Amino acid sequence: MRLYDYFRSSAAYRVRIALNWKGLRPEREFVHLRRGVQRQEGYRTLNPQGLVPALALDDGRVLTQSLAILEFLEETHPAPPLLPAAAADRARVRSIALAIACDIHPIDNLRVLDYLTGTLGVAAEAKDGWYRYWIDVGFEALERSLARDPATGRHCHGDVPTLADVCLVPQIANARRVGMDLSPYPTLTRIEAECLELPAFADAAPARQPDAE
Amino acid sequence: MRLYDYFRSSAAYRVRIALNWKGLRPEREFVHLRRGVQRQEGYRTLNPQGLVPALALDDGRVLTQSLAILEFLEETHPAPPLLPAAAADRARVRSIALAIACDIHPIDNLRVLDYLTGTLGVAAEAKDGWYRYWIDVGFEALERSLARDPATGRHCHGDVPTLADVCLVPQIANARRVGMDLSPYPTLTRIEAECLELPAFADAAPARQPDAE
Repeated sequence: MRLYDYFRSSAAYRVRIALNWKGLRPEREFVHLRRGVQRQEGYRTLNPQGLVPALALDDGRVLTQSLAILEFLEETHPAPPLLPAAAADRARVRSIALAIACDIHPIDNLRVLDYLTGTLGVAAEAKDGWYRYWIDVGFEALERSLARDPATGRHCHGDVPTLADVCLVPQIANARRVGMDLSPYPTLTRIEAECLELPAFADAAPARQPDAE
Repeated sequence: MRLYDYFRSSAAYRVRIALNWKGLRPEREFVHLRRGVQRQEGYRTLNPQGLVPALALDDGRVLTQSLAILEFLEETHPAPPLLPAAAADRARVRSIALAIACDIHPIDNLRVLDYLTGTLGVAAEAKDGWYRYWIDVGFEALERSLARDPATGRHCHGDVPTLADVCLVPQIANARRVGMDLSPYPTLTRIEAECLELPAFADAAPARQPDAE
């Protein structure tokens, strides 16, 4: 397997955590998003969306979309698991992961921010406000959901990490990178701290990657 | 089961298709998004994100996020399936679904458009350009992926519908509603036509819902 990765991509960060958790060590190739390598024809041939991560399998097939890759890893390397056993519990975990992966992260993605400042001529300050706003909206709902639900444990679901934690930690890292006040989200930051005690999470952090700047 | 639905929500439309496909007929309650019912405390207690769809189970648990609901329906009512059997094929189907559910739909969601015109003061014409732009970006990549891949058949993956088709048809409906030119996407519209021959898809269309306006 070969992972197409970029240290600061929080979608790639999710996949790095899951690979570590399952003890998998694919080859890695770094796609420099700030330099626009993902928009070049070479990478577009691999992934027409021009986004990272992508995971090339040994048979030549290329998987894209971080959550599809995470589900693939879960199905092909089920132990240790990142989803609980019961269907309604799995739905709860996936809904937390998707609330981040659909409703926060893509709205704050680099290409969207570029459209705001470029095509729409939005000022840098308003763009920063946008970035923070969508994280706050998403985190407020997540904090409320997690804090009231007895299914929340040391982690988002019970006392072991799941795909929910795998998505939460990189999103909090993005919020920290821009200096957001996370005090309204004590449940989220408590779970983050719990996760970062685990080498699978800590070793996947952007600053620890070979391409980190 | 009770589905919290809105005729024009394309995320709810996905779930309606899957329920039809699997022969399930939950009770339904309509959440009028244009009137802001989703932001009221009553609905927020049910789903803190304030988004539709939500699926309340008979035991009182409430599932949110359309893709989490779709996976739940697939796990609890596996026949007829909406995912293929092999892990890499499942990843392909999920990646198509997620390319729509993460990278097109949330960026064009009502709350994002409201932020553009409200907080950022973007003109209506530029907002409409935004809406179309993200559909075009997403559809260009999908058309390229699907057209070149021999795994594409009458449907997105082979000759039977999957979660990929379940996400594609509502997104094309959104594009049609605003009069977009879909001629650059012959593979996508061919698959759409194939899907709309099936009652599960046709009966889930916004115009056929009891709350349609």
